[in-house]
Amino acid sequence: MPEPMSVPRWDVFEIALDGPKTGNPYLDVDLEARFSFGNRSIVVPGFYDGDGVYRIRFMPDTEGDWRYETSSSTSDLDGRTGDFSCGPAKPGQHGPVRVVNKFHFAYADGTPYFPFGTTAYAWMHQPLEQQDLTLNTLKQTRFNKLRMMIFPKDYIYNNEEPIMHFYEQREDGSLDWDRPNFAMFRHVDKQIETLRDMGLQADLILFHACDRWGYRDMGHDRDFRYLRYLCARLAAFSNVWWAPANEYDFLIDVKPLPHWEEIFKTLERYDPYRHLKSIHNGDPARMYNHRLPWVDHVCLQNWDVKQTVAWRNEWGKPILNDEPEYEGNIPRPWGNISGRELVHRFWITVMRGGYAGHGETFMHPRDDLWWSKGGILRGESWPRIGFLRDLIEEDVKNGLTPYAYPQDNWEWTRVSGAHDDEVIYLYFGEHQPAEWAIGLPMTDGDYEIDLIDTWEMTITPLEKAPLPVAPAYRQGGGQYSGGEPEAAFGVRLPGKPYQAVRVRPRQER
Amino acid sequence: MPEPMSVPRWDVFEIALDGPKTGNPYLDVDLEARFSFGNRSIVVPGFYDGDGVYRIRFMPDTEGDWRYETSSSTSDLDGRTGDFSCGPAKPGQHGPVRVVNKFHFAYADGTPYFPFGTTAYAWMHQPLEQQDLTLNTLKQTRFNKLRMMIFPKDYIYNNEEPIMHFYEQREDGSLDWDRPNFAMFRHVDKQIETLRDMGLQADLILFHACDRWGYRDMGHDRDFRYLRYLCARLAAFSNVWWAPANEYDFLIDVKPLPHWEEIFKTLERYDPYRHLKSIHNGDPARMYNHRLPWVDHVCLQNWDVKQTVAWRNEWGKPILNDEPEYEGNIPRPWGNISGRELVHRFWITVMRGGYAGHGETFMHPRDDLWWSKGGILRGESWPRIGFLRDLIEEDVKNGLTPYAYPQDNWEWTRVSGAHDDEVIYLYFGEHQPAEWAIGLPMTDGDYEIDLIDTWEMTITPLEKAPLPVAPAYRQGGGQYSGGEPEAAFGVRLPGKPYQAVRVRPRQER
Repeated sequence: MPEPMSVPRWDVFEIALDGPKTGNPYLDVDLEARFSFGNRSIVVPGFYDGDGVYRIRFMPDTEGDWRYETSSSTSDLDGRTGDFSCGPAKPGQHGPVRVVNKFHFAYADGTPYFPFGTTAYAWMHQPLEQQDLTLNTLKQTRFNKLRMMIFPKDYIYNNEEPIMHFYEQREDGSLDWDRPNFAMFRHVDKQIETLRDMGLQADLILFHACDRWGYRDMGHDRDFRYLRYLCARLAAFSNVWWAPANEYDFLIDVKPLPHWEEIFKTLERYDPYRHLKSIHNGDPARMYNHRLPWVDHVCLQNWDVKQTVAWRNEWGKPILNDEPEYEGNIPRPWGNISGRELVHRFWITVMRGGYAGHGETFMHPRDDLWWSKGGILRGESWPRIGFLRDLIEEDVKNGLTPYAYPQDNWEWTRVSGAHDDEVIYLYFGEHQPAEWAIGLPMTDGDYEIDLIDTWEMTITPLEKAPLPVAPAYRQGGGQYSGGEPEAAFGVRLPGKPYQAVRVRPRQER
Repeated sequence: MPEPMSVPRWDVFEIALDGPKTGNPYLDVDLEARFSFGNRSIVVPGFYDGDGVYRIRFMPDTEGDWRYETSSSTSDLDGRTGDFSCGPAKPGQHGPVRVVNKFHFAYADGTPYFPFGTTAYAWMHQPLEQQDLTLNTLKQTRFNKLRMMIFPKDYIYNNEEPIMHFYEQREDGSLDWDRPNFAMFRHVDKQIETLRDMGLQADLILFHACDRWGYRDMGHDRDFRYLRYLCARLAAFSNVWWAPANEYDFLIDVKPLPHWEEIFKTLERYDPYRHLKSIHNGDPARMYNHRLPWVDHVCLQNWDVKQTVAWRNEWGKPILNDEPEYEGNIPRPWGNISGRELVHRFWITVMRGGYAGHGETFMHPRDDLWWSKGGILRGESWPRIGFLRDLIEEDVKNGLTPYAYPQDNWEWTRVSGAHDDEVIYLYFGEHQPAEWAIGLPMTDGDYEIDLIDTWEMTITPLEKAPLPVAPAYRQGGGQYSGGEPEAAFGVRLPGKPYQAVRVRPRQER
């Protein structure tokens, strides 16, 4: 394709070069380019795209004039130079997501990013019309992250062959790990770009255990060649996240811990943009050590969402609980909670300073389970999760800090609450007080107070009410302990479950 | 009262003696009796009951002929002897409750006892008609334990004066800790006897922090004189349980840990029947060390009921979670879960090998909250808890052993299940599988399988169904891990929350 003279900020600038077709360029030909902006320079790996075409992709992060020069031991590809200008980002393009404020995320341009993701592991391996259906469904939702596997999946409810393999298939059906099927990699490029332009982060699972073709154990060198190739092809897409594993511990037989460390370091080496990296455990007793410096945020699967504050304290990084169990009805213990329960777990997680992930596993005659194949959403939780996202994006700037035991009060192990500069949320969940004070502002003021029904998705203004009675233990000496006013005022509540309260300064909106 | 020549087994044999009225017999007069059965003898403390009357109470545990001889430094009370015969126990009297099978309870005659208790802390301090109302309400329920305070309570929703104090009140209103108000102690005798004859265990809280009269800090010597006096008056009632504290940690300012140890040891010294002893924490971070040998079972308050197996593993004693939060709507975080949630927590607790306690805290114009004052039950959980008790008593013999991680499978951290020799229960709670196998029998047979709706209290026969798909990870080598059959057969379920399954051998019932 012809080089564009100008590329928008955080978009993909791509160079295509003609080079050798003979031998096995995937193995034999090296190519990289140095991109320069003033005194700053960034080295980017190139990749072979088949049919004698070599590509280099680059995502400029600064507006202005850029230069590049290629280098390769293959003369056709060596010393090629050019320049281009980086213009303003397209509308809606905020750059890659970063960790900010220790436990939260923001785009490179500073816009807060609150992950409300879903999971459709094998959606890219389904027939194309099913993939279009998935994209159309996503457009109806408020999900802003999609957790997905690069390699095809062989697991219950998903035993079909993928539309294409990532490597050439021999006559005996085995895959030649040294010969990529460029068509499939191009398909992945396209779908990630589509997600990017829809505003979804692509949380890419690089290895997983649910496999019958051998991807789980291609061998040490091939794993790393594949990773370098992925970085070269995909890192220039602003919405890429790297998840080295889904359930790394179920791969520990073929990828011991040092192998995982090398995977992280390979991504750091070949991804010049340092996209977010996290690793996902299977057995809750075999958590990866998320304190390690190459882990950007904690990705875990755990149903026990009231532990979110404990996880924050333990790891000191953003908590992304991608599998607080899925809404559905399948006979697996992780795939059959009610929609109400999943919405409840989202609220608890967010109100304790973490982020949760959605998935759907309803039995279906054709085994069309969203969690694996995408397609259509059949549950009740997804609109309520979107409602929660809209609420959070309306008021939260830095990310929520939970009321937490022991910093605050042990009562916060029971109910959930969080605050950012100007907003306070309380979530009662299975609790159904008829009146309340704990967590409301300690100083009186002109507040806008709302009752939020998290299931009905209604917002109803509340008035200040007198402070409810606070407990007081009279001590031997006669003085009280406890019994101090718990807030500047109280509120009256409907006395039913799954309610929340929002308090913010009154202002024109 | 005239000595009966015969007393039923585990009933109260009482001796009344006339002695000095002068001075302060409560402080000055010592009295005990030695009861003998063949070569066996048991020393029992006596007590002053006012107006020159001294009593000795004894609960014979063996049928046959008993003798006694009193001893006292007061000649009128010394060397009095007599004999009586112990006959068969009255119907429904099974003797005191003991710990059996490490994590469970049984009466002295071997009948299993499954605690399904409720809490009405200050019911004995309410007007008498209110106390009658409480007893009538209890008769409508299936509760078999009542958690209650000896001393009156001063706390939110319960600030009234008690009907009587336990000590004489001086003109300035202060209490004379050296002069018991025998009328109030007699009232306690009567109510505990009434509960006994209704089949309820009296879980007696001996000290608590919610006090404005000084009971919480009578001073070291008076605490122990009070304990000896309680043992002398009450230990002969078969249904007595000793709970040294409600929230011992909220009394730690006046009763440090060695004081609590001395309390336990005083009970062991003066209670010849070794009634069950446990101690209750306030702050979950300040659990008492329940491993200590004088603690018979673990009494705790903790909402996080899926931890029940962890508590079993940590303490190695029966787990009695008396406060998994209360059904109600008050503005305290521990007192406002829905009835559905409390029933859910009962099922989770029991299906993980523990026992739970009920309480009700609905706001009321006259502050008639069952949890404190007794009276009337207004919630939805109590009949469902009775339904659970009936189910357990129908099939469980030794007590339930939970399916537990890691002994069984990590899946049991999500759903709950337990078994006794011939019965298996699975409780799905917030999970709603449409079919299921995990935890069902591994060998086929002629089983009676029932679907239990824990909220609707319905029991519906289920047929065996084909085994649902089990997960299989194909390993690099080609062999599967997982994927073994999870049971001999499956069941089809309605795919809604709060369902349970019971499996037992088919037989005439």
